[in-house]
Amino acid sequence: MQVYDAPIRDMRFVLEELHNDDGFGDVEGYEDFDSDVSTAILEEAGKLCKEVLLPINWSGDQEGCKLENGTVSTPKGFQEAYKAFCEGGWAGLGVAEQWGGQNAPHALGKMVEEMTCSANLSFGLYPGLTGGAMVALEAHGSDELKEFYLPKMANGEWSGTMCLTEAHCGTDLGMLRTKAEPQDDGSYLVTGNKIFISAGDHDLTSNIIHLVLARLPDAPAGVKGISLFLVPKFLPNADGEPGEHNHAGPTAIEHKMGLKASATCQMSFDGSKGWLVGEPNKGLEAMFTMMNTERVAVGIQGLGVGEIAYQSAVYYAKDRLQGRSLSGVKNPDGPADPIIVHPDVRRMLMTMRAYNEGCRALSGWVSRALDASHSAREPEVRERATDFVALMTPVVKALFTDLGHESAQLAVQVYGGHGYIQESGVEQFARDARIAQIYEGTNGIQALDLVGRKLPHRMGRNLRSFFHPVSQFCEDHAADPAIGKLVGALQQSFGALQLSTGHIAQKGLKDPEEAAAAATDYLRLLGFVAMGYCFAKACKIAHAKLAEGTSEEAFYKAKLITAQFFFDRLLPVATAQFMAIRSGKASMMDLPEEAF
Amino acid sequence: MQVYDAPIRDMRFVLEELHNDDGFGDVEGYEDFDSDVSTAILEEAGKLCKEVLLPINWSGDQEGCKLENGTVSTPKGFQEAYKAFCEGGWAGLGVAEQWGGQNAPHALGKMVEEMTCSANLSFGLYPGLTGGAMVALEAHGSDELKEFYLPKMANGEWSGTMCLTEAHCGTDLGMLRTKAEPQDDGSYLVTGNKIFISAGDHDLTSNIIHLVLARLPDAPAGVKGISLFLVPKFLPNADGEPGEHNHAGPTAIEHKMGLKASATCQMSFDGSKGWLVGEPNKGLEAMFTMMNTERVAVGIQGLGVGEIAYQSAVYYAKDRLQGRSLSGVKNPDGPADPIIVHPDVRRMLMTMRAYNEGCRALSGWVSRALDASHSAREPEVRERATDFVALMTPVVKALFTDLGHESAQLAVQVYGGHGYIQESGVEQFARDARIAQIYEGTNGIQALDLVGRKLPHRMGRNLRSFFHPVSQFCEDHAADPAIGKLVGALQQSFGALQLSTGHIAQKGLKDPEEAAAAATDYLRLLGFVAMGYCFAKACKIAHAKLAEGTSEEAFYKAKLITAQFFFDRLLPVATAQFMAIRSGKASMMDLPEEAF
Repeated sequence: MQVYDAPIRDMRFVLEELHNDDGFGDVEGYEDFDSDVSTAILEEAGKLCKEVLLPINWSGDQEGCKLENGTVSTPKGFQEAYKAFCEGGWAGLGVAEQWGGQNAPHALGKMVEEMTCSANLSFGLYPGLTGGAMVALEAHGSDELKEFYLPKMANGEWSGTMCLTEAHCGTDLGMLRTKAEPQDDGSYLVTGNKIFISAGDHDLTSNIIHLVLARLPDAPAGVKGISLFLVPKFLPNADGEPGEHNHAGPTAIEHKMGLKASATCQMSFDGSKGWLVGEPNKGLEAMFTMMNTERVAVGIQGLGVGEIAYQSAVYYAKDRLQGRSLSGVKNPDGPADPIIVHPDVRRMLMTMRAYNEGCRALSGWVSRALDASHSAREPEVRERATDFVALMTPVVKALFTDLGHESAQLAVQVYGGHGYIQESGVEQFARDARIAQIYEGTNGIQALDLVGRKLPHRMGRNLRSFFHPVSQFCEDHAADPAIGKLVGALQQSFGALQLSTGHIAQKGLKDPEEAAAAATDYLRLLGFVAMGYCFAKACKIAHAKLAEGTSEEAFYKAKLITAQFFFDRLLPVATAQFMAIRSGKASMMDLPEEAF
Repeated sequence: MQVYDAPIRDMRFVLEELHNDDGFGDVEGYEDFDSDVSTAILEEAGKLCKEVLLPINWSGDQEGCKLENGTVSTPKGFQEAYKAFCEGGWAGLGVAEQWGGQNAPHALGKMVEEMTCSANLSFGLYPGLTGGAMVALEAHGSDELKEFYLPKMANGEWSGTMCLTEAHCGTDLGMLRTKAEPQDDGSYLVTGNKIFISAGDHDLTSNIIHLVLARLPDAPAGVKGISLFLVPKFLPNADGEPGEHNHAGPTAIEHKMGLKASATCQMSFDGSKGWLVGEPNKGLEAMFTMMNTERVAVGIQGLGVGEIAYQSAVYYAKDRLQGRSLSGVKNPDGPADPIIVHPDVRRMLMTMRAYNEGCRALSGWVSRALDASHSAREPEVRERATDFVALMTPVVKALFTDLGHESAQLAVQVYGGHGYIQESGVEQFARDARIAQIYEGTNGIQALDLVGRKLPHRMGRNLRSFFHPVSQFCEDHAADPAIGKLVGALQQSFGALQLSTGHIAQKGLKDPEEAAAAATDYLRLLGFVAMGYCFAKACKIAHAKLAEGTSEEAFYKAKLITAQFFFDRLLPVATAQFMAIRSGKASMMDLPEEAF
């Protein structure tokens, strides 16, 4: 059973209560999105997800996409769902009003993204890619390109892609071979083959706008010779309607482990007409604008799948009767108790719950910083927010997708043998979530980005944007009678993080392989400390609410228990990570290649 | 790429060098299986696996099984492979000579099982189930049944199944409904429906012998009213050839996440003729004879998939060129270095390698104990071996399958985007391995078996069969100049295990939910300490070999590095598990059911 109701109460907690003191709240341009409007948007989005996107999630996986006669068709129901999605204005939720969007803050938009990813990850990719393409185009495209393309992308009429990977190069884009020849009219003819192109072709929109990395004839070798081009599937006529086919199309669709309703294409560009986006040979930077947005979005995908996996597992754990509670029969009228009574089932459910709430809390913080980085009134705040987003982007991407996949696998485990059967719907979550640990830069690459770029950047300034509030909070609340004990545990893991940071800075300076050998453990450690900090803050708020009296006692009490579970059962792994980091690179690197 | 060569050198290390001092070596009846014979068997098995079973592994996944006109057909090539398997005598490798088998020791047979599971897990299930059925039949069947059925099962002419699960009961077999009516001729008519029956029907053998759990008319309720019946698919004629159809057949095959070439059937028994195996109402005990053998076998499945996942990932990591080494260009003539130069790729490969070698070492120890439990000359040794097998059976099942699945997922990660594509062959490993964490008792059930049954059994005697040698080894080698440091780390995690054991014994006595809340972490902790002990012993041997001079320097040096990696990077998680266990059940159990 795929079960989903948008977790709106927890989303509102994160949006409205948890991060009010983070200094990122004073932003311009989002005045319309007060609590009532935001709640209404969350509720509408939740409804769409539950009623329109969820019902075609499993069928979409079973049916998959098909390539026939050079075009891809999406599974049954996807066209209608996409129409409803666009008619609701969801395609342009976060887009500037100038292009016809609603200019909603990221803090809200990411919550809506989480919902789409829960209800139908494959579906979510189509508008998701368009969103990323719009970000890159808005940041780097000429006014002409922006005015022509953005409005049609913001209303969902046209969609977007990002075409980076080629068969021989994914992570290492310096090797890419696709070529772009300048034409007299200022356009370019793009020629080459790409693989793994999400939404590379489909039947949801009348045109598809590809952003393609390619090399100019005189380009230097490596990553410094890559430029970005806008290449539409159909060349628009003067009236803006799609016209002549541009020889930019799919040659195959990939047979994947999951995410089968999302068309992942091998693409051929055969002298396809395109336009330069940004400056020549600066394509990678332009693409990274998109990629960084996408990396946070991919992290949210992990969270989204984690949430529906949790809800589906809870449903089954309450429904499935098997065995009796160790503390006495709980369902005397039935042949057995529901399996939610068993500690080991609880362990799995609470783990998923804590991951989801922890990731949502952290994602809410990062999203507020995203908004502040663009729109905070104070330049110092914009700068600090930019630092924080830079630091946390790889953490959100890698940590959330790892935990989302783990939650999906836990849901399968809760279902037991039934979870391994396709009809249960839960094994799809595990297959779908798996790609998020890989695409937009593998999680190993995220960890390298964190320790290799984000830590040393401007003498550790990124890191201070995170360490400072945590350290301040610990200082302020170490003696707090309500949360002092949790704060003590937080301090301990924070201490391990600080020592690890020192270890990496010191050893990595002499030998970059030492930093790289610590990277994955360090990212996880940092992420867990960040979640722990969010949980400790949540407890502070919950205790205050319960002390002053609230009609939502159950919500705040549950928050305290989930946080306690996180501190009891999940955060301890920080110690293991610290020990692993401290051990250095030797045993990882010593084995000669031929001995493998 | 699915890449596999049987790891014969490491298997021989485990068989011949690692456990010589464990006291389980003096057994009767296996005199023929000296080093030369064992090595020849391993080599022959490795050849069969590589040349016959591996080539149909991926195609079998793609094609799957089909049910048409009431019978299941296996994928292309399976019939021929099964014929080769039987002709080679592999079906009866571990079976007593009395029934036409070769009576090979478990210590050797489990190595061969590991190979089959590496090369083709789906295939391995067909003979694997037969093996389990033979064990139950040999232990509990009448002489008549044994003489009639075992020879044909030992040569692979007929296969076996175990039919336990019904739609409403898996773990909780007390609820099962299948009925058996006694007939005047001493037989029974069995009626009921079963699900998830591995090898329930197929086209590999001329008959299938089902072992079916069912209730006699006067049976008490619950698990004390279950009996075991032998129900053949075709009723044998007097001449022993399959005759009349016995109305025991598949009604559907399950659509699973993986293991698609293994036919998992829904079965209907419709007044099917059967014979009682063992005593009335003692069926569960008889079935557990089979199940315990199967649980170790399922653990080996995890190891098998882990090994091929490792080898396939190594192949790709050496072949795929992407990026440059942080310590200087390693492949100056190529456009990039092979990704095995990157620390994070090494981390994944070394993790898989350490898991596989650690599990193989532990499995070798348990298999020796299995042999000793039946065939040791000294009764005290038989008893100690029985204790040790009882303790380790749930550990082998749960730990190996968890780590095998993790290794399979790491292989996908090493392949990056290509790993998510079916053609790469590695995502199949992850899907196939996933079921092993579930069937034959979920891993949560294994953990409960460990803390609830195996720990308290006879005042902790099972545990002493493990604690004693570890504690002795630590004492003897704490000051060893070569391995003293590793032993110190082992002592630390062993100390955590001892304290955890005390915690569970003490808290669990008053409140069984406390023990259950600790179970999964405790199993992992115990398993890691056991692997750590095996690695420390391996290091002792390797140091001695290197000191005295050996032509296999590379092998022993690699063993030292892999062991060091285990202690540096993997064993530290024991500390986290200890902290989690110590935290108790409260945060796991406190959330009211309605708050989920």
